[in-house]
Amino acid sequence: MIELSFFNILDLLGTVAFAISGALSAMNRRLDLFGIFIIAFVTAIGGGTIRDILIGSTPVTWMENTIYIYLIGLVTILAIIFRKKLDHLKKSLFLFDSIGLGIFTITGVELGIQNNLNPIISITLGTMTGTFGGVVRDILCNEIPVIFRKEIYATACIVGGLAFIFFYELGMAQDVIYIITSVTVIVIRLLAVKFHISLPSFYLSQENTLQK
Amino acid sequence: MIELSFFNILDLLGTVAFAISGALSAMNRRLDLFGIFIIAFVTAIGGGTIRDILIGSTPVTWMENTIYIYLIGLVTILAIIFRKKLDHLKKSLFLFDSIGLGIFTITGVELGIQNNLNPIISITLGTMTGTFGGVVRDILCNEIPVIFRKEIYATACIVGGLAFIFFYELGMAQDVIYIITSVTVIVIRLLAVKFHISLPSFYLSQENTLQK
Amino acid sequence: MIELSFFNILDLLGTVAFAISGALSAMNRRLDLFGIFIIAFVTAIGGGTIRDILIGSTPVTWMENTIYIYLIGLVTILAIIFRKKLDHLKKSLFLFDSIGLGIFTITGVELGIQNNLNPIISITLGTMTGTFGGVVRDILCNEIPVIFRKEIYATACIVGGLAFIFFYELGMAQDVIYIITSVTVIVIRLLAVKFHISLPSFYLSQENTLQK
Repeated sequence: MIELSFFNILDLLGTVAFAISGALSAMNRRLDLFGIFIIAFVTAIGGGTIRDILIGSTPVTWMENTIYIYLIGLVTILAIIFRKKLDHLKKSLFLFDSIGLGIFTITGVELGIQNNLNPIISITLGTMTGTFGGVVRDILCNEIPVIFRKEIYATACIVGGLAFIFFYELGMAQDVIYIITSVTVIVIRLLAVKFHISLPSFYLSQENTLQK
Repeated sequence: MIELSFFNILDLLGTVAFAISGALSAMNRRLDLFGIFIIAFVTAIGGGTIRDILIGSTPVTWMENTIYIYLIGLVTILAIIFRKKLDHLKKSLFLFDSIGLGIFTITGVELGIQNNLNPIISITLGTMTGTFGGVVRDILCNEIPVIFRKEIYATACIVGGLAFIFFYELGMAQDVIYIITSVTVIVIRLLAVKFHISLPSFYLSQENTLQK
Repeated sequence: MIELSFFNILDLLGTVAFAISGALSAMNRRLDLFGIFIIAFVTAIGGGTIRDILIGSTPVTWMENTIYIYLIGLVTILAIIFRKKLDHLKKSLFLFDSIGLGIFTITGVELGIQNNLNPIISITLGTMTGTFGGVVRDILCNEIPVIFRKEIYATACIVGGLAFIFFYELGMAQDVIYIITSVTVIVIRLLAVKFHISLPSFYLSQENTLQK
């Protein structure tokens, strides 16, 4: 087992948060034990995997360290055991999804910078890292992908990414940047849902719409 | 910013065409501002990204040059502003989808040849590059994937790819090959839809069909 | 054409099995000639492609050797010609899917070991290699993904992967390990469906369920 950097610890925290959200979605779909584990696994590693593949960092992170698999297995079992305590599924799912979103945004932006990518591309990578696991979870569980629901979602990652770059350019300490970024993403997401904040949508005139 | 080759210019043209088609689909789904941008982005970079990942050319193209992101952002804004002018959505969507299809087919075949892949594999790569963005757009927007509609679609890419290889083997100038290939794909697609040309389908006897 | 190792031959056998299952699914959906080929192709190469991308072995296997494409084309044509003989579609589909599952599990675990990945990660890679093609086929053909149906599916790959690692550690000959592994996966899958064996599922209380 390799030594864990602060970066890896964040990656693991995001993994745990998304694994719980995946396990909850899977139980909601009445999948069996392995089905729950597989959805938890894909949700947890989805964002980091697409991030690693896009920048060409292979074998992908979870392949180089068994801790990811063991952790997701443990989280799945705990989520099953304590499923009755996680009442208000919608709230639990939303909370853990938001935490994962905030943390994975950081790892995407950070890896972008480490790979000398342009700031705006690093923010895009952060947004994809944050949102991809949840989108795959929702597609596999046949929910409306979280990214398309009314409230602000990917936008929170973009704002968090901008904060990351801003304080990075100011030369602020890495740990502080990490905390500011994730808190920014999570708070925006929580406020957006609490107060039903959404961006304007633009649609075409009625007669213009595709006939299905 | 790196200097643009003719290859990059084509890649940008295909990006613009697919970004418009993505933005139109997203507005048809009444997504918000960032939702429209994200669908435009994924549609525009989807084909090139799968192409780059499959041949192992990472970081993928849009990560190495910010012009892709800025261009897709600009196209999204213009598509929103001029959405009333893009009346006959179905026709606009179809036209830009066809242009993207033709251009991205070229970039896939070209990269296959540059990587010393076999001609038939280069054609396959061109077909995947051409069709992937549209398929992802349709899955995310919950439309029937364009590749499965009645008229000829992927077949146009395959024929265009064959033309590319044929004239390449004849030693024709690259620019001429590019133009012939894209025009071939676009014309086949336009004619197929105009005249409802489709390939034969083969199905199983009634009692043979899967019970759902 | 490169020389074929025993590994490549297995990869080709799994490719044929999944190509047949893909062609059957596509004919069930009344797709046209190229639609059938594309579904057969994606089903057949899906698992191996995700395996190669995750470990960073690019260009992916089917790009380095034209035999994959020719073979899938041939299989598609044969499946169309003999579609009336493949009566009991459900049984044929199930049988070929199981064979592909067993064989691709081997190639994933084997490549994991060759890349010095941890045994548990090699088993995960084997499971993803075995199941991914079928999941993509089912999503594209709008079936319920096979991985979510009641009977044991991915679990068969995991047990087969464990058998692989166990006999590998014992120093058994490679060919014997390969045969034991694939037979394990296939037999578990066949028995699970025949006797409706399933794992327990855990669901949340009624009032706890997500409102849709």
